[in-house]
Amino acid sequence: MAFMQKDILGLRTLNQEDILEILDTAKLMKYILEQNNKKTPHLQGKSIVNLFYENSTRTRLSFELASKYMSASAANLSSTSSSVAKGENLIDTCRTIERMGADVIVIRHPMSGAAHMVARHVKSAVINAGDGMNEHPTQGLLDIFTIRESKSAVQGLKVAIIGDIYHSRVARSNIWGLSKLGAKITIAGPSTLLPPELGKTGVTICGSVEEAIEDADVIIVLRLQKERQQKGLLPSLREYSQIFGLNKERLALAKKDVLIMHPGPINRGIEITSEIADGIHSQIEDQVTNGVAVRMALLYLLTRQRRK
Amino acid sequence: MAFMQKDILGLRTLNQEDILEILDTAKLMKYILEQNNKKTPHLQGKSIVNLFYENSTRTRLSFELASKYMSASAANLSSTSSSVAKGENLIDTCRTIERMGADVIVIRHPMSGAAHMVARHVKSAVINAGDGMNEHPTQGLLDIFTIRESKSAVQGLKVAIIGDIYHSRVARSNIWGLSKLGAKITIAGPSTLLPPELGKTGVTICGSVEEAIEDADVIIVLRLQKERQQKGLLPSLREYSQIFGLNKERLALAKKDVLIMHPGPINRGIEITSEIADGIHSQIEDQVTNGVAVRMALLYLLTRQRRK
Amino acid sequence: MAFMQKDILGLRTLNQEDILEILDTAKLMKYILEQNNKKTPHLQGKSIVNLFYENSTRTRLSFELASKYMSASAANLSSTSSSVAKGENLIDTCRTIERMGADVIVIRHPMSGAAHMVARHVKSAVINAGDGMNEHPTQGLLDIFTIRESKSAVQGLKVAIIGDIYHSRVARSNIWGLSKLGAKITIAGPSTLLPPELGKTGVTICGSVEEAIEDADVIIVLRLQKERQQKGLLPSLREYSQIFGLNKERLALAKKDVLIMHPGPINRGIEITSEIADGIHSQIEDQVTNGVAVRMALLYLLTRQRRK
Repeated sequence: MAFMQKDILGLRTLNQEDILEILDTAKLMKYILEQNNKKTPHLQGKSIVNLFYENSTRTRLSFELASKYMSASAANLSSTSSSVAKGENLIDTCRTIERMGADVIVIRHPMSGAAHMVARHVKSAVINAGDGMNEHPTQGLLDIFTIRESKSAVQGLKVAIIGDIYHSRVARSNIWGLSKLGAKITIAGPSTLLPPELGKTGVTICGSVEEAIEDADVIIVLRLQKERQQKGLLPSLREYSQIFGLNKERLALAKKDVLIMHPGPINRGIEITSEIADGIHSQIEDQVTNGVAVRMALLYLLTRQRRK
Repeated sequence: MAFMQKDILGLRTLNQEDILEILDTAKLMKYILEQNNKKTPHLQGKSIVNLFYENSTRTRLSFELASKYMSASAANLSSTSSSVAKGENLIDTCRTIERMGADVIVIRHPMSGAAHMVARHVKSAVINAGDGMNEHPTQGLLDIFTIRESKSAVQGLKVAIIGDIYHSRVARSNIWGLSKLGAKITIAGPSTLLPPELGKTGVTICGSVEEAIEDADVIIVLRLQKERQQKGLLPSLREYSQIFGLNKERLALAKKDVLIMHPGPINRGIEITSEIADGIHSQIEDQVTNGVAVRMALLYLLTRQRRK
Repeated sequence: MAFMQKDILGLRTLNQEDILEILDTAKLMKYILEQNNKKTPHLQGKSIVNLFYENSTRTRLSFELASKYMSASAANLSSTSSSVAKGENLIDTCRTIERMGADVIVIRHPMSGAAHMVARHVKSAVINAGDGMNEHPTQGLLDIFTIRESKSAVQGLKVAIIGDIYHSRVARSNIWGLSKLGAKITIAGPSTLLPPELGKTGVTICGSVEEAIEDADVIIVLRLQKERQQKGLLPSLREYSQIFGLNKERLALAKKDVLIMHPGPINRGIEITSEIADGIHSQIEDQVTNGVAVRMALLYLLTRQRRK
């Protein structure tokens, strides 16, 4: 069945069929990415605007290059000033971008639900590139793509997610997406940062990192946001590393062919040792390439049949 | 007669024929913009540099997308630092941009006359995207385009411009352009912000908003720059809204088919109520699309026959 | 013999043959630049990322336009924040950019050797756009290109370099490159800013500007970094101008057909008078165009035969 979504707002609201179609399309896009000539005409005549209200290096660049590889007209708008972060102005801004001809608006915003609000008010397709503490669906999709590349299927895999789950939109998108494909998810992290309501989603909340990663097929290590520590939500970086960091000893508890993933950028020696980040289990750099492929797939699917 | 201007610096110095040729060309460009595939080869091999010394979201994005839709090589240079705002360096900067191959330099600068000064020193075409308190000709052109789309002709129309006329380059460009096409212009706003010399241009300075918009065919509401208030030039925002804001009661004084325009971004509830901004008379979002079309037309006309 | 370099890190490590091949290729690129249609398909399907950790207007724009003229997918990443300036993170950042498909990473960084370190860790070609106080090879190449355009050969020419040699990566790249092509180099500047070890490279360190430029075929005037003065390394700007500035009297000591060059932006009236900067000997604006041509040549040579 054809992909009919107008927007990509989160994995919570995407069904299994759509997720699989995105991932299958991304496989073709990855093939293009590996060619000597990466230019394709798929987005010729289409226009993509990246609207970032939070600093971003990799996500913005990934979308920008994905757009350009497919011959789109791509432009960036960045703002970290709080004056533009108000709801009403955001809609006016996005309607303006729509009326300049944007076929897709890619938006990152500190407010949870910002992308959803925008999507209701514009005809352009909207891709959520991270909204507050809610979701980061393209990261979730690229993580699932990476797992599917190495493992025959997601169904039945044990996936451990380690770190500050509470503030992590990456964790939330992975939990929604991986659950839909039948993975068994365990989470571990500082107890102040484990949202208890996650128990209802079928996720197993573990009392220790060791328990979470035992026999795991995949370990997703979250980036530690150092500024959380200053707010008293975390122990010292050293303690964090000792209690929650992924090191050789802990890795030995997982399956022999475990995949290690991280959304980047990594804090070497804090949430993960350099040895593991650069080791044979690490998928961290493949995730980057897969991120471009997944974003190419989304841009293609969202603009393919669009009539203004 | 063919369009022969080297630059677009203001509507004061553009004659009626040139304005009409730009608007007619923009009509074709708008047709392209409405297609499923917006890519055209008109600027293939041409290079556009957007040089912005003031913050801008919509004008810069509008020029950037206009350039890209027409296959130009487009690049942005932004600077709000005052160290680069000096006259002499500005010319050196622009000559550097010229010698990198820029066919068109689009410049916004806080100094009135900056674009004119640059234009005298470079062979590249120069488009004034706003110079201090002087002009913003592409906004004026897109406003006139919008009026012509809805009304059979500009000749004889009553156009009211409401707000801080003194600081508004939008007002100035509209006054020059609309006068040349035969409109009858009325203005109203805080008396400290109504330049008396405008009386000489044939504009009618009104004592109240009500007087200015009575039987108007078009009302152009200017954006209130809130920082003016801190300088003592304005009453409180609440008073401003009560005395000068466009609301339902005032709108009833205008013609039944009045067009409501605003250069954006709007301050909802201050210079205009949301009801009117989103209502049936509002052209505000059409103005945005028309802005891209007008800029495409200018880029095309300025580079069409250019030989280096 | 074919150009086989993976990266362009400095002129110190480039041999004469490679330098000449780059310059010959740049001559073809300059021809393209002078056409009415500047678009070429040479970088179609290739991706260039400009990663700038220091402010730059002209170098970044020059690379960006060079990329776009040749149909590459080009994107910019800028950061002047010190948090991203650490060595380890820089490598991770560049590996991320590599894995997004960048064929060439253009990097400017305040740390000497930054580009070299990156080049060892990525498969992408790396172009050093300035690393600390070390080299700025594309500036050196464009300077040599400019000399070769006017003079039959570099061999045997007397080239004077005037200013703060110690902090100048432009000076260093010129010294390495011009020496390899057989020029005789003299330098002069504040004695605190003349690195004594340069004596070993065959450069003649002069006691006065007059001595350095006597009978010179070329004078390269360096930009005075005004912030050096605050650190006590320089006399007042007025004294600097009197003792080291290039003016009509000093110019008379050089050959009749001397070329005056400057990497820009110039401080008019400090290191060079306006009369000379805008005079018949000045190559300053030609250097800008030649810079685009040289960068086009490098991007072409580095991506021509690249297989991922």
